[in-house]
Parts: sequence; C-alpha cells; structure tokens
Amino acid sequence: MNAQTLNYPEVSNYADAPTQYIEVEGVSYAYRSLGKQSVIPVVCLQHFTGTLDNWDPIIINGLAKERPVITIDNSGIGNSGGTTPDNVQDMARDAIRIITALDINKCDLLGFSIGGFIAQTLAVARPDLFRKIILVGTAPQGAVAMHSFPQLVEKAFSFDGTEGFLYIFATKSEKSRAKITAALGRLMERKNDRDKETGMAAIQAQIKALTRWGTDPVTLNLDKVRQPVLIVQGSNDEMMHSRTTSQQLFEQIPNAVLICYPDSGHGVFFQYPEMFVEQANFFLNHFE
Amino acid sequence: MNAQTLNYPEVSNYADAPTQYIEVEGVSYAYRSLGKQSVIPVVCLQHFTGTLDNWDPIIINGLAKERPVITIDNSGIGNSGGTTPDNVQDMARDAIRIITALDINKCDLLGFSIGGFIAQTLAVARPDLFRKIILVGTAPQGAVAMHSFPQLVEKAFSFDGTEGFLYIFATKSEKSRAKITAALGRLMERKNDRDKETGMAAIQAQIKALTRWGTDPVTLNLDKVRQPVLIVQGSNDEMMHSRTTSQQLFEQIPNAVLICYPDSGHGVFFQYPEMFVEQANFFLNHFE
Repeated sequence: MNAQTLNYPEVSNYADAPTQYIEVEGVSYAYRSLGKQSVIPVVCLQHFTGTLDNWDPIIINGLAKERPVITIDNSGIGNSGGTTPDNVQDMARDAIRIITALDINKCDLLGFSIGGFIAQTLAVARPDLFRKIILVGTAPQGAVAMHSFPQLVEKAFSFDGTEGFLYIFATKSEKSRAKITAALGRLMERKNDRDKETGMAAIQAQIKALTRWGTDPVTLNLDKVRQPVLIVQGSNDEMMHSRTTSQQLFEQIPNAVLICYPDSGHGVFFQYPEMFVEQANFFLNHFE
Repeated sequence: MNAQTLNYPEVSNYADAPTQYIEVEGVSYAYRSLGKQSVIPVVCLQHFTGTLDNWDPIIINGLAKERPVITIDNSGIGNSGGTTPDNVQDMARDAIRIITALDINKCDLLGFSIGGFIAQTLAVARPDLFRKIILVGTAPQGAVAMHSFPQLVEKAFSFDGTEGFLYIFATKSEKSRAKITAALGRLMERKNDRDKETGMAAIQAQIKALTRWGTDPVTLNLDKVRQPVLIVQGSNDEMMHSRTTSQQLFEQIPNAVLICYPDSGHGVFFQYPEMFVEQANFFLNHFE
C-alpha cells in the first residue's frame, strides 16, 4: 500500500472499527480510526505490551463522539510489521512516520505509559505537528521507578490469568480490582478482527526502552513543551511512582493541568473512564 | 424572622439573586440562593474577607444550571450579624446553625480558602449532613504556610487599588493577572443590593483563625473524611503553599480527586471558571 488519505469508517463503537493498514517504507502498520469529523484528530499511543485491542472502548468512544480518534500499533507491535526499537526516541520517530503517512498535518496526542514517554518526546520535537497532549500514567525521563522496571515485569508475568494485569493496573482494594476487572472485560468485547498479541522480541525491546527512559541521561527538556498538556495519574501507580512523577511533570511542563484519581494504579483511566472522557474532551475542546 | 423553608428566586444570574435573611438565635444571617431544583443543593463557604459579592458569577451560574446553589455570609461577615469567631471550629458551628435553620438536611459543600478549612471540619463532624465536598485553594490543618499569614496579609493590604487582590489571587504572569483582573470585573457586575464590606474586627478574627489553623495542634483527622472530595489547587498559591498542601490533602483524604491548574495563585478557580464548572458539576453529579 502507499500513503493514503485517512479513512474514518462510520461506526460509533470502537469494537466495530475495522483494522486498517498503511505502508511506510515497506513496513505495513495497523491502525483503527473512527469518530466525528471536522476537528483535529487525536492519535493514541499505547502502553507497554498493549495493542489496538487494549484501548478501553468507553474511552475511545467517548473521545470519538467529539473528534476523530486514531489508534496505531507502533513498529513490531500487534499487527504492525517492522521491529520494535529498544529506545523511546526511535519509537517517536516511527510514530511520526505513521502519522505523516496518514496525511495528518496537525493532531493531538493521547499517550499512555510508554506511549506517554513517546508523546513527551514528540511534543518537544514537533510543536508544528502536535497541538495538545494528554499524558496518562506516565513519568518524565530519568524517573527512578524505571530502574526497577524489569523486576516489576518479571513479577507481573509470574501471576496466572488476569492477576498480572491487576497487579500493574489496579490497587489492592476490592473496588479498584473490580473496576479494572470490568475494564478487562470491555477489552474483550471485540470478537473479530482482533490484533495479534505482542511477541516476546517486541516486549524485550520495550522493557529495554522503558528501563533506559529511567537510566539514560536526561536529554528531554520538558520546560520546552509549548503545547497545553493534561496529565492524568493514579494515586498508587507503582510502575510510574506516580506520587512524585506526577508532580515532576506538572512542575516542569509550563502549561499543564494535573488530575490525580484516588485509589488507582497504572490503569488509572480504565478505572474512571467516564470522568476521564469528560475531562479529556473539555481539555481538547477548550483549554488553551 | 424565624426559621423558614429555603426559597429559590427564579433568576439565572447570580448578579440578580436577591439577598435574603434568616434569623438564628437572634442573629440575622445574609444568604442568596438560585438554581435548578430537585437535586441536592451545594452550600458555598467564602474566602478570607470575602462576602456574598465575592463569588464569581460564571462559577455560581454554572453550578446553578444543574443544582440549587446557596451562598452564605458567616457570622460577622458582610450583611450578616453576629461576631466573627477567631477559630475555624466555631465558624463551622455557625455554618451548621445557618444550614440547619434553612431546613437543609443534606447538601454538598464548596469551601474556598478559609471556607475550605470550615468545609474540612464540617465533613468530619457531620457526614450525615454533608454528601460531597469541593475544596478550592485550601490547606490541611497544620499547614506551615499559615504561620506567616499575618505578614502576607499585611503585604497584600499595603498595595493600592486592585494590586493587593492580584498579589494574592494571581501569579506574576501577564496571563494570570489579566484573567484575575477580568474576574474582579465580574465581581462588580452586580450593581444593587450589594453586601457590606467585611469590617476590620471580622478581618482581625479571621486572621487569627487562619493563623491558628497552621499553628494549633492538629485535631482534624482527614483520613476520617467519608465523603467524596474534589480538591482544586493553583500551581503557585503562595498563601496555601499549594505544591505541598495539595498533595497532603490528596494523600490524607481517602476518596479525593486532585486537580491542579497551571500558572495560578490563590484565585485558581477565578482564573479557569469554565473548566472548574465542568469538573465540579461532573464531580457532584457522578463521582462516587
């Protein structure tokens, strides 16, 4: 396939949005798109191991009611070809290639977790291309939490069934676990045309990239972020050490709104999807 | 006058809401009320020196579109009789007397600044009476910032015209100063039936109460707050040391959402009134 004009299927539920493909320099990238036309689209950058199937439909549908939404599998993830880079900078480069190939010349970004690392990088690199940025469950470069990321992953992978997911995404409270379990159910609503699960080579590269985000010298100056930014963090996101990193992001980014939700882990917006949609839509529609 | 059933004049603009009076134990208290009926009302507790005329009409009108809103002058403030107490506990006692006299048996609270101290106190004291709490530009008991409160006030009072207001409510940025200046203009929209300005005896008592909130032994256990709480803080609220106190409130109150706005001082919600209305209405309507 060659570069193409972005197509928005007429669906109102993310579970019904067909997987589409675009070719960039010989690599086929998977994406989905839907939503109300006419305003600036938001491009969604996914978390560690996550694919197109890991976006909560309540969130995507809620955003899509007011704007075009595009979810992408970055290099080597899900149904996308290519090789997953072992560093965030190259992931950001690949994201720009996909976005440019989709003929987007201005968009907003929603970056979750490692997708938030990429979104921070993109914001500084291309203020011409990215208008507003939403960062969820993420941390600034140099965040100490990332030093122990491989151990955290090893522990999460040691659990059976959904317990590994709950270990990262929920707190230990019954309420948080119930809400994240419900979100997991929503991720399974889509029955057909699902993404391939992310393979071990890509996961290993992502682990390296996540760890390096914490251990490499800090090169990203967040005080150079010119865009309005919405930061959404869980009260107890152990993966991102949210209590300190949320404040760091808020203090370093010049024009940021910080929202912290209670009793929540890394899956902060899976736990409060309706509130997130309300706040994200207001931010994207009105905040300057 | 005797205790009466609360009356909501049919006005859509706070500037047109008549000042009403209710008598409690021989003291006449001033209040205003407006808004959509049928759901739980929100009672608004004002900041240091502020009267009924110091509520931003964008905020009151925005809340009133979805619920009954009641603003009150506490003892010795504005057009209310009585003597302003020199401690938050007695201010809370008087607030309960007014609310009870208005025949309210369940309401939400919006507490701004010293009104937030009162709201925290009321939340713990009367979980039966207060359903949800919004705290704006406030601090937990024992907050170090309050130790230097008399000096801060002296400095603010030393400026001419609106500069004292800007010193407390805005940051030093042009944008913040312009937005707070605009808010000041909105406070002057009401031409008739304005409140008396708060007198020096009441101000001196409030200064003592504010200072004691920081210096007296901490007796209020915020981990006993059973209500959902929305905390809204400015990035640079020097009066409340918002960077540390906002985290303290968020960490100590079990079920709190924290929202921090950028480049803002003590007048945080005057600076972003539309965003505040959106977030406050969502919280009051939906958050549990």
